[in-house]
Amino acid sequence: MNGLTKKCLITGGAGFIGSQLARRLLAQGCEVTVIDNLFTGSKSNIYDWLDNPRFTFLMHDVTQPFWGQFDEIYNLACPASPIHYQRNPVETIKVSFLGMMNTLELALKTKAKVFHTSTSEVYGDPDVHPQPESYWGHVNTIGIRSCYDEGKRAAETLCADYIREYGVDVRMIRIFNTYGPHMHPHDGRVVSNFIVQALQGKDITLYGDGNQSRSFQFVDDLLDAIQKYMQIPQNELKDFFKKHNMDIPVLNIGNPDEFTIKELAEITLELLPNTGSKLVYEPLPKDDPKRRRPDITLAKELLGWAPRIKLREGLPKTIEYFKKLLENN
Amino acid sequence: MNGLTKKCLITGGAGFIGSQLARRLLAQGCEVTVIDNLFTGSKSNIYDWLDNPRFTFLMHDVTQPFWGQFDEIYNLACPASPIHYQRNPVETIKVSFLGMMNTLELALKTKAKVFHTSTSEVYGDPDVHPQPESYWGHVNTIGIRSCYDEGKRAAETLCADYIREYGVDVRMIRIFNTYGPHMHPHDGRVVSNFIVQALQGKDITLYGDGNQSRSFQFVDDLLDAIQKYMQIPQNELKDFFKKHNMDIPVLNIGNPDEFTIKELAEITLELLPNTGSKLVYEPLPKDDPKRRRPDITLAKELLGWAPRIKLREGLPKTIEYFKKLLENN
Repeated sequence: MNGLTKKCLITGGAGFIGSQLARRLLAQGCEVTVIDNLFTGSKSNIYDWLDNPRFTFLMHDVTQPFWGQFDEIYNLACPASPIHYQRNPVETIKVSFLGMMNTLELALKTKAKVFHTSTSEVYGDPDVHPQPESYWGHVNTIGIRSCYDEGKRAAETLCADYIREYGVDVRMIRIFNTYGPHMHPHDGRVVSNFIVQALQGKDITLYGDGNQSRSFQFVDDLLDAIQKYMQIPQNELKDFFKKHNMDIPVLNIGNPDEFTIKELAEITLELLPNTGSKLVYEPLPKDDPKRRRPDITLAKELLGWAPRIKLREGLPKTIEYFKKLLENN
Repeated sequence: MNGLTKKCLITGGAGFIGSQLARRLLAQGCEVTVIDNLFTGSKSNIYDWLDNPRFTFLMHDVTQPFWGQFDEIYNLACPASPIHYQRNPVETIKVSFLGMMNTLELALKTKAKVFHTSTSEVYGDPDVHPQPESYWGHVNTIGIRSCYDEGKRAAETLCADYIREYGVDVRMIRIFNTYGPHMHPHDGRVVSNFIVQALQGKDITLYGDGNQSRSFQFVDDLLDAIQKYMQIPQNELKDFFKKHNMDIPVLNIGNPDEFTIKELAEITLELLPNTGSKLVYEPLPKDDPKRRRPDITLAKELLGWAPRIKLREGLPKTIEYFKKLLENN
């Protein structure tokens, strides 16, 4: 970095995870540029730093090329919740594929290191449980979730090909269900849904019988993993994955503690006892995965990392965020 | 079509299947435009019609947008054999994804009907046998074949999304192993390999123990299916697939007769008895599918179609083509 401040680009940096990452990198003294089209990201997530001289916001859509000299590019741009990504499926798969392609092209031309957030959705509705990185997944190419699932799968393929063909330094993780402050209040995903419903005194909606399980990771654990991962020298990374018969670096990052959706609803109500909300049941949407849980053996070994924040610790922090958010609206 | 001659565009029209399709459409009186970058396609495949006023050749790469007013667009552009598509994996997945996107954008803007050739490779290394269209497949996102497999999967997803979101009239098929005249002599696939090796008096190379099975479809059977499929009115098509609980039209087109690779080699030698070639064995390449066979129930019912040309009929025609080709070189 030639004595210069480390320059980081975050695509999707006005979103939930992207903005939390931006906050950290700024606190660590980096120069941070955020690219976001503000479709699901929000200006309010980055508002605090708009006057920070080390921060730049570029409103741009990653389906179109972008340029700039950065040391690290974090590719987080993509609507990640079904109600958002199904609103415009064509745009969703374009963001996933073209955004990745534009990121990799920029990295190739400028020698930037790339971090890519893939997703547990690449495993689809898994028939192996828990899922190790070597599991190939079970995804419908033409289903209503495929704009996201296949878009993310093809983005992984692009990463693998730019690594093999051009030697671009790309590190991928597959993020499992993550929650925390700055989640979109209306993204339709279960943690934010339940909290917002409870805070508003509405009934809590469960899809199916509520016995489908999920693992919930608090966002700080995810950020710890991302940063540890990015610090590892490229040759050490290669050696590690080679030892595990993999030629492409990809890690599951998530919390393997399983809860049923019903348990999550019950804990939420326990933490918000005065809401009067009840549990109500709706039919399960098409292609909804029944069960998903990360095998994090590789991440533990490579990063010396494991999730530390329990659901009963992370949920209150998230509730506090949503309380303030709803009060200010 | 307002009394005008039917105008057809074939991407990849200088390739094996594309050029055979062009020949048919020209014979039927259509105006035919071929787009090809000539990476695996060959000018010699379209040479006969260069002076035909109903034929136009446009050398162009489908990763870049293209324009024109056509009634039907046949999307066949993509290197389809491992030695070709692995030569430049980044380009391969771009052709598959961007070529599809550019095709669909053109169709959307001009109301053209789209035919897309997907592939049995979307099933990957299947754990269901034979494969019906409802099978989701078993594909490695970051393996060395994924540039093709995932590229084709994501192209299917694009089709599904343009159908649902914009109502574009797209008909997809998943082609299983197809052979015939105008195959690329050095595409490394088994039928052309064996014939060319035998014709040149070289030993015939089998990968693995030769007991992996394949189904081999003669190209004329495929073309029959494509044309029957394109003639069906869109509403009838919708009703048919709806009846089968599918909202996206996709059909397996292949020959379900199974042969082991070893049997194919033996039949080839039987048809070319004076070559002196022997069978030799090499290790199986990574991620090579062990077995694949189409379930063609849907195609039979919808198209009243079934493959008619047996391997012992189609192989001699293919051998004859390669004989002439090798004599002229």
